[in-house]
Amino acid sequence: MKAILIVGDGMADRPVRILKSKTPLQAAKKKNIDALAKIGISGIMDVISPGVPPGSDTAHLALFGYDPYKVYRGRGAFEALGVGVPLEKGDVAFRCNLATVDSSGRVVDRRAGRIGSAETKELAETLRRARIRGYPDVRVIVEPATEHRIAVVLKGDGLSSQVSDADPHMVGVQINKVVPRVNTPEAAKTADIVNVLTELYIERLKGHPINKEKMKKGGLQANALLFRGAGELPEIEPLTHSYRLNAAVISGTALIKGVCRSVGIEVVEVDGATGTVDTDVTAKARAAVKALRSHDLVYVHVKGTDNASHDGVLDQKIHMIERIDEMVGGIVSSVDLDNAIMAITADHTTPIEIREHTGDPVPFTMAGHGVRTDRVRCFDEVSCAEGGMNRINGVNLFPIMMSFLGRTKKFGA
Amino acid sequence: MKAILIVGDGMADRPVRILKSKTPLQAAKKKNIDALAKIGISGIMDVISPGVPPGSDTAHLALFGYDPYKVYRGRGAFEALGVGVPLEKGDVAFRCNLATVDSSGRVVDRRAGRIGSAETKELAETLRRARIRGYPDVRVIVEPATEHRIAVVLKGDGLSSQVSDADPHMVGVQINKVVPRVNTPEAAKTADIVNVLTELYIERLKGHPINKEKMKKGGLQANALLFRGAGELPEIEPLTHSYRLNAAVISGTALIKGVCRSVGIEVVEVDGATGTVDTDVTAKARAAVKALRSHDLVYVHVKGTDNASHDGVLDQKIHMIERIDEMVGGIVSSVDLDNAIMAITADHTTPIEIREHTGDPVPFTMAGHGVRTDRVRCFDEVSCAEGGMNRINGVNLFPIMMSFLGRTKKFGA
Repeated sequence: MKAILIVGDGMADRPVRILKSKTPLQAAKKKNIDALAKIGISGIMDVISPGVPPGSDTAHLALFGYDPYKVYRGRGAFEALGVGVPLEKGDVAFRCNLATVDSSGRVVDRRAGRIGSAETKELAETLRRARIRGYPDVRVIVEPATEHRIAVVLKGDGLSSQVSDADPHMVGVQINKVVPRVNTPEAAKTADIVNVLTELYIERLKGHPINKEKMKKGGLQANALLFRGAGELPEIEPLTHSYRLNAAVISGTALIKGVCRSVGIEVVEVDGATGTVDTDVTAKARAAVKALRSHDLVYVHVKGTDNASHDGVLDQKIHMIERIDEMVGGIVSSVDLDNAIMAITADHTTPIEIREHTGDPVPFTMAGHGVRTDRVRCFDEVSCAEGGMNRINGVNLFPIMMSFLGRTKKFGA
Repeated sequence: MKAILIVGDGMADRPVRILKSKTPLQAAKKKNIDALAKIGISGIMDVISPGVPPGSDTAHLALFGYDPYKVYRGRGAFEALGVGVPLEKGDVAFRCNLATVDSSGRVVDRRAGRIGSAETKELAETLRRARIRGYPDVRVIVEPATEHRIAVVLKGDGLSSQVSDADPHMVGVQINKVVPRVNTPEAAKTADIVNVLTELYIERLKGHPINKEKMKKGGLQANALLFRGAGELPEIEPLTHSYRLNAAVISGTALIKGVCRSVGIEVVEVDGATGTVDTDVTAKARAAVKALRSHDLVYVHVKGTDNASHDGVLDQKIHMIERIDEMVGGIVSSVDLDNAIMAITADHTTPIEIREHTGDPVPFTMAGHGVRTDRVRCFDEVSCAEGGMNRINGVNLFPIMMSFLGRTKKFGA
């Protein structure tokens, strides 16, 4: 038995006024996903807890069976893992933005005009060469990610992720001085390091050739790095141990790749998996089918539905759902559901009218050998609520799938 | 977005024999509530835990999102808060009954013949003047409530609510000697204080003019005060902080007002809200609509359905449900459900054939902007069990409502 888990990021929604109170899932044409609902069993799922809007990182921890309230230690670690920084216990990782500050130090643009990946790579190289003074025992790793994003990891003894953000999360104000969130020498030391690095990086970015060029053209300079989302590796037993599972992920999103690496899921890089609405779903389907040959479980993540939701572009959300359906069709046509279990769901609800994650449950469907069926014939928020799986919690989905793979341990005798 | 929560106390029931196995909710005419079920989403809810009969106080803690198993510290505190005693951390509060004891000290009537509020007020004044000997550091507050009920609060250092009841909860036996429930000096001290007060109050009530008058007329004297339900303030974060919520309650019941005050809900007094079957539902509807102008959430509680259930009077229960329906109609006609979320439920099941709270789940319906709908067309125990919300726990209802108000915090990033 093999398993395939497919997640449309932020795919779930609420009734939309201009769709005459249908949801995008109800409005989209998705014959392949609906076919799974017909032959499978459906339900709704509180990914974190009823009413609580999940983050994408905590949601994925839950989807892989880990209680995020117990294991979550901040987002930074996942971003760093996602871009390939090898993280160890005790390291503290930050997700940082290249940003524009004015002459008085006020943040003008938190993304330096959404500077491109090539320029970010070059600027990151400059930051990498800067040496922090006063902390000879601390090693600073700088790794460029997509667009304006840079991962920074501190390695050394006596560090802590319990520090505030330097990023003020708004424009027109100064960069925040980072402070410890708990009264420990580790948190105090880490806060000071971040403050020193922030100053050091402003100094190194000033007058950088890229910024000189931007200034000439009247563009926004990338003259500061905003630290945020301090995180450490969660202390967990990876899926390779707990279920002796050989799993792979196909995703264009660094954060998701990072969460997957943290739980022992191997990242399969796919050309054309962009983490945006332009992603190549056919390439993803092909890669999923291929990965399934050498893995027990393949997880396929599509980010575009969430991007469209945050941007409030309804047509794009429906279009992305239809492309996910295309991808599901590609996978189903090459998978023997007599020897596999296939599940599809969302990691959270992002209503197109709200443009933020909300705490509504998400629909899910599971099809394949052994599942009890129900009367649900469409995969959407309303139909799945009538399904045979009723209402479950996010952390329950993975053990249920593993049960069909015969990989859950009997409790008792 | 605004929110309205309506609770019919003990409104849920089981199939009733003489209703040909319909429940009172199924038998009652309630077009306004059913209209909400039609446009909204329904489900069933285990207010505390499946099979566990909730108290009204623990049920309400759960309905406001607090885990009663973690925060509940006894009923007394809520009764005292409900009648307006300002409670502080460390105070121990009791709900007491004026009762009748015979010459050998046996309890004859636990409610002193349901003595009226006016006489209770006068007797409470006498008790208030009594000074306890041996405990100069303890202040005793005596506050009359409705009918035979009196709240007593002990203020001072080193007190504890971990003491037993003096009230034997039956007639024909002596008043219980209060004992500590835990082996601490605080509990021992508090138990002794209650025993001393019990003696002192018997002494002061003996030969009181009101009792002399009663004796003359052959009525039941109010010659003892039965202490029970020792409680302390729960240590909780009020809703005003956790959700930055400005909330009001409309209820004629001291206990419910007390629970509301303990979680930061402002009490709106309404003339005609009696906490009995005579309550003025039109006045309550008007007050709710008015309170909604200045508050984010208004909670409306109607006690009469529970009174009718405890008394086993089926017609009255059905009648009370129909009056709640009238009230709901009054509220709905003045509320824009495009900008509000409205929920209706019961705090527990009180089957008319059992006359006590039972552990059955209660039905609930939620209507307003953003809710996903379902096929449920009637608000009752059987129909709501087929609803799109499936089955939730009591503590989940409030976060779900807050999610529609955009007031739940995202967990993770």
